[in-house]
Amino acid sequence: MTAKSESGVREALEDRDPNNLNQHLQIVWDDIIGEPEGVRSPECAWQLSHVCFRQARNCCYTLLAVLIAPPCALLLGCGCACLAFEQIWCTAPCLRSLKIYCASLRTMVQACMAATVQPAAEAVGHVCGHVRVNFRRDAAEDRDLLIV
Amino acid sequence: MTAKSESGVREALEDRDPNNLNQHLQIVWDDIIGEPEGVRSPECAWQLSHVCFRQARNCCYTLLAVLIAPPCALLLGCGCACLAFEQIWCTAPCLRSLKIYCASLRTMVQACMAATVQPAAEAVGHVCGHVRVNFRRDAAEDRDLLIV
Amino acid sequence: MTAKSESGVREALEDRDPNNLNQHLQIVWDDIIGEPEGVRSPECAWQLSHVCFRQARNCCYTLLAVLIAPPCALLLGCGCACLAFEQIWCTAPCLRSLKIYCASLRTMVQACMAATVQPAAEAVGHVCGHVRVNFRRDAAEDRDLLIV
Repeated sequence: MTAKSESGVREALEDRDPNNLNQHLQIVWDDIIGEPEGVRSPECAWQLSHVCFRQARNCCYTLLAVLIAPPCALLLGCGCACLAFEQIWCTAPCLRSLKIYCASLRTMVQACMAATVQPAAEAVGHVCGHVRVNFRRDAAEDRDLLIV
Repeated sequence: MTAKSESGVREALEDRDPNNLNQHLQIVWDDIIGEPEGVRSPECAWQLSHVCFRQARNCCYTLLAVLIAPPCALLLGCGCACLAFEQIWCTAPCLRSLKIYCASLRTMVQACMAATVQPAAEAVGHVCGHVRVNFRRDAAEDRDLLIV
Repeated sequence: MTAKSESGVREALEDRDPNNLNQHLQIVWDDIIGEPEGVRSPECAWQLSHVCFRQARNCCYTLLAVLIAPPCALLLGCGCACLAFEQIWCTAPCLRSLKIYCASLRTMVQACMAATVQPAAEAVGHVCGHVRVNFRRDAAEDRDLLIV
């Protein structure tokens, strides 16, 4: 039964971050502690540290999750509802109005630009009308003037 | 009957944002909370948090939608009517007048530019008349001056 | 049995830094002391120094690891749990809200830009409307005016 619930936890675990929100949260033992070649702690101290780390992390997180997560989720739910309502019923209509005004504004700016800046830019663009490029593939070696 | 109304809600839901106005509004549980590998809250706390979040979000949004959405929609309807009237009967005719004036202005600017800026730009453009590019494929290795 | 535990330590050692966290910690004898060609200490002094170094390093590190590593791991575990909880239940939802607001802001900025800057940039872009490049592959050698 323990094995079953353990596998159940593991299966649920694999689905708890389907969108990889907290992929950066790397707090497995191997991600924090690593002894390179040349220094080695005794096996007992290494194992004891590993167990201490894992137990402290799990107990502490479980405690926090049991005590604070549900009210936290409650607040998050209310906050999300307000955010969604504000976005759907205020922001989206305002953005639509803004887009309608901007469409008129763009037509006005385009007309002004087409009458003034565009002819001037085309006239200035004649600077590039006479580019002439010579390609050579066999450049001569630079001779060293000091040796001969 | 519950399943039927549930599916009915779902069908209506699928049609409520056909233009993807609020596609960025990702407030499903998986979009907000995700436990990566290494930390796992107990199943009970996780489920309880999930239920708290979902219920709080739905209740809060339903309350807001019932109380504030209808008057909000009333105001939006009036605002859209005014906006449409202003765009159709004022902005569009003004833009047409502007375009007519701009057409004349463009002809004038083009004539002035063709007489003054364009010849000057062509003269300056002869700066680019002597570009010469050498390609070499067999560059010598840089020798290390410090060793030997 | 000693050989077995020795090989066990070695095998565990090879796995103690799988993510190469401390690869830069190069404190093997060869990484610190090296006599180049031309200077050489007597063999006895060299070996004695090597043994002194290795024993001092191992004893000192073992002592520290046995005494301080387990409580240190305990604290690290608690710290990681708090960090993970804060990241999962506070930072991630806040980031999601920020993203939702930023999506609206982006739409607004895009609309304004499309109405003002984009037409201006397109008008100025007509500067490049008259680029004309002549390519020549057989450039004549520059004659030296001083020689003939």
